[in-house]
Amino acid sequence: MPHIAVPADLPGITGLMAFRPDTGRALSEFAEHLMRGPSPLTQGERELIAARVSDGNECHFCMSSHAAAARHALPDDGTLFAAIRSDIDTAPLTDRLRALLAIADQVRVSGRNVTDEDITRAREAGLDDNAIHDAVLVAAAFCMFNRYVDGLNTVAPHDDALYDRSGQRLANEGYLASLTPGPGRPAQTG
Amino acid sequence: MPHIAVPADLPGITGLMAFRPDTGRALSEFAEHLMRGPSPLTQGERELIAARVSDGNECHFCMSSHAAAARHALPDDGTLFAAIRSDIDTAPLTDRLRALLAIADQVRVSGRNVTDEDITRAREAGLDDNAIHDAVLVAAAFCMFNRYVDGLNTVAPHDDALYDRSGQRLANEGYLASLTPGPGRPAQTG
Repeated sequence: MPHIAVPADLPGITGLMAFRPDTGRALSEFAEHLMRGPSPLTQGERELIAARVSDGNECHFCMSSHAAAARHALPDDGTLFAAIRSDIDTAPLTDRLRALLAIADQVRVSGRNVTDEDITRAREAGLDDNAIHDAVLVAAAFCMFNRYVDGLNTVAPHDDALYDRSGQRLANEGYLASLTPGPGRPAQTG
Repeated sequence: MPHIAVPADLPGITGLMAFRPDTGRALSEFAEHLMRGPSPLTQGERELIAARVSDGNECHFCMSSHAAAARHALPDDGTLFAAIRSDIDTAPLTDRLRALLAIADQVRVSGRNVTDEDITRAREAGLDDNAIHDAVLVAAAFCMFNRYVDGLNTVAPHDDALYDRSGQRLANEGYLASLTPGPGRPAQTG
């Protein structure tokens, strides 16, 4: 049961956003910039980092939503994230994706864990300063979102169809589509 | 040395915001809402949570900046944060602040660590759903900011006067004051 009175029918962060629409808007605007704004990383790459970090943090709601978003945003036959979860060393990853997820894994534990070797590997895979910046920030941001969702003990259904729908919506419509218009401020749709 | 080419004279997050003004604006707008927007928590309480989490994450830049901001925003003779760092159990904290920092300490490690007992203690100290929500989100957000600042290996000077100035500015002028106006969009000053 959630620690605070969020609407019972809204799982994960959706209940928190309904509980506090002001904060929901601020977080959604940040997420839209982070996950779909200008970046050398594709939307699918950013979603895969989000899913990977959420998996490490054992945040079922975020992991499932963003794994589904990655599946809809990446060229992926639907097996990539399962392969990563099963054994990242043997998963069919490009050097670029492998370097991104390695940075994400370090950031998840601590920012201080990112090594010069992690950065060198990323550059050798063709990632530039902006790409490295964005990988670190996306991984760091999901350390926030995971703690927000789980720290308030929100409900995380085990319902693959639900996550597939929300992941598809995130991939195609983005993070502002579900906001209701505020006073004098029309909802953006990304 | 930072992992990416941030301006050499700008420490911590200030260099990252100069490196990527678009992201700097998105993060600043979120921080202004989080730390100075409507909340049952005072600005000083939120700054103290930020400093406590940053200390636990060993992020010297964030800890020093937000400890200074807390000092300027709280009724504090300047000794409170040092007392908390030295021994939180004997620090002169109200039940309310003690309950808030206990939640922050749990969230810092994992959102999953927040217990029903933590929440009960918070309610007994007079904290309501909105206060608990905000405490969890502020603690979670600094798990992001700390990882962003340290994951890119930004410079964190050991210069108390610098942090005192930036803490005073955060406490009095907020998180948008240092932004430059964007095209057609005047800088807000909180």
